[in-house]
Amino acid sequence: MATERNVWRLARRPVGAIAEGDLVYASEAMPEPEAGQFVLQVLYLSLDPTNRIWMSDAEQYMPPVEVGAPMRGLVAGRVVKSRKDGVAEGALYSGIGPWADFMVSDGQGLQPMALPPGVPLSVAFGVFGLVGPTAYFGLLDIGRPKAGETLVVSAAAGGVGQIVGQIGRIKGCRVIGIAGGAEKCRFLVDDLGFDAAIDHRGEDVGARLDALAPAGVDINFEQVGGPILDAVFARMRLFGRMPLCGLIASYNDTMERQGPAAWRHMLMRRLTVQGFIVTDYADRWGEAVAALGGWMAEGRIKTRQDVRPGLDRAVAHLDSLYTGGNFGKLLVEVVPDAARI
Amino acid sequence: MATERNVWRLARRPVGAIAEGDLVYASEAMPEPEAGQFVLQVLYLSLDPTNRIWMSDAEQYMPPVEVGAPMRGLVAGRVVKSRKDGVAEGALYSGIGPWADFMVSDGQGLQPMALPPGVPLSVAFGVFGLVGPTAYFGLLDIGRPKAGETLVVSAAAGGVGQIVGQIGRIKGCRVIGIAGGAEKCRFLVDDLGFDAAIDHRGEDVGARLDALAPAGVDINFEQVGGPILDAVFARMRLFGRMPLCGLIASYNDTMERQGPAAWRHMLMRRLTVQGFIVTDYADRWGEAVAALGGWMAEGRIKTRQDVRPGLDRAVAHLDSLYTGGNFGKLLVEVVPDAARI
Repeated sequence: MATERNVWRLARRPVGAIAEGDLVYASEAMPEPEAGQFVLQVLYLSLDPTNRIWMSDAEQYMPPVEVGAPMRGLVAGRVVKSRKDGVAEGALYSGIGPWADFMVSDGQGLQPMALPPGVPLSVAFGVFGLVGPTAYFGLLDIGRPKAGETLVVSAAAGGVGQIVGQIGRIKGCRVIGIAGGAEKCRFLVDDLGFDAAIDHRGEDVGARLDALAPAGVDINFEQVGGPILDAVFARMRLFGRMPLCGLIASYNDTMERQGPAAWRHMLMRRLTVQGFIVTDYADRWGEAVAALGGWMAEGRIKTRQDVRPGLDRAVAHLDSLYTGGNFGKLLVEVVPDAARI
Repeated sequence: MATERNVWRLARRPVGAIAEGDLVYASEAMPEPEAGQFVLQVLYLSLDPTNRIWMSDAEQYMPPVEVGAPMRGLVAGRVVKSRKDGVAEGALYSGIGPWADFMVSDGQGLQPMALPPGVPLSVAFGVFGLVGPTAYFGLLDIGRPKAGETLVVSAAAGGVGQIVGQIGRIKGCRVIGIAGGAEKCRFLVDDLGFDAAIDHRGEDVGARLDALAPAGVDINFEQVGGPILDAVFARMRLFGRMPLCGLIASYNDTMERQGPAAWRHMLMRRLTVQGFIVTDYADRWGEAVAALGGWMAEGRIKTRQDVRPGLDRAVAHLDSLYTGGNFGKLLVEVVPDAARI
């Protein structure tokens, strides 16, 4: 086994966009597992918009990463050394871990992974790790879709958005995705079966919504905030629902963002807005994994992943989430050829 | 029976606060009931913040009042002439009607009123007409109060607010009212049993909330909007709920109001905001009336009313809702000594 590991540590809290030197990548001695611990070789690191929140000390839903500590992420890997009963070498685990190629753990925050037949590790980790259950609980529990309703998904080509739209189609909704760029929009309609897509870079979101959904929007699966939220909010229908699981537009802001401009619609149209974090549904995780696994096996849910090599380039990869430079669920392949390991 | 009636008509749509001449009061010939109609002598007219919305042509939850038409309100009265089967002269009815001392109706929008024993017409009309069910459904269905939670009520000395706070106490909540002026605050604590009250005219709402509820607010029964909403919103707790049934602060605005300043709390604290209008609960009206009647009979819900004489001064009376010049559920006594009729 290696005697060193590579780790990203948070050197200081970013102000606005992440700058050179906010996170520092270095080799350090491999920690030795004590009794009750094991060593996981990290094969994939998931990069998610929420990572930027964890770097800040603004109020948030988990403790922020301490300055000097390894950066936190969602990881999947294989046990390479175990001093913990019940944890076998070779077993696959996923959960919360450091941005590193090896981690020592007592198992807290990690769950054993069972791969559905025919589903590669990267896909299972990408879907079941975080984005699939986020889409599942947010859309079904909060959005409560009914057949024939109009569902709008912002950041639709991202990890969560792809799955939200496809579940919406399964439930009989008319699904309109909002994404940045013609290629992503084509993918949503041609590959994932969305009814329509709006390119927020090249098109006027409000005008396109008026054309595509003249009667308005029943459900807005909200992940972005800012002007895109304003455009959709102004077009919500009576008794509309808005699951809110992200505010990407504001993560790099140093200013506070206001709520929707047309706030009076909350009352006049009796809207419901509900924020959620997928970990709130921890006790129902199995339900989401079973449903998603079933739909994947039937070919009704496809995912596009954006798997990139190089743990050493993780910060640049993460940045692409906020600039729109990524396409699909973003994973770092920590070990070359991880799919074979 | 009188041969003339007095009616307020909407002469033009107000811009900002209601101005002289926006509504016009005049006598006109008494309309004759046709077959299937009856004449109601209006005894009480309820004045509610929402009346201002109906005068505008902004998007709203009912059709706006047409320019030239009688102003719309909630009325209670007695049948003085009937050409409709099943409607007896002398019967009490309440519901939607004109700002007038007599109305002709086919019964649409009106319901027969049964007075609980010992409860005067003005009290029954004031509580059961609109504000009681609003408080009941908004707090219980959307707020979902649990014993020990902290409930904040804005516009707490108003018709809805008084009842919300008292139902909150019945459900075991710690109740903090926000009202304008020391007298109203004293009333909330001393007469209605609120745990505390904040005078938004003389006190810093945020600082007082920090002192009174250092752990934050579980439920904000929201009726006001603007800076008071911002102060409470910033102090909402994890999984907080916010029934929203009014935005008084903005009804006289000509500008659109933004949503809450600290919008990110929606996500970080997983808040739920839900707009509602009491008519959404029309099919459960009886449930609210039964529960409220029971609590009133037990002395657990008291109400303060602000009953004012003079239909001819209705606009000035209504104005007091937006300036804070009224105290308690505002009713106009259309007929002198209506309580005896």
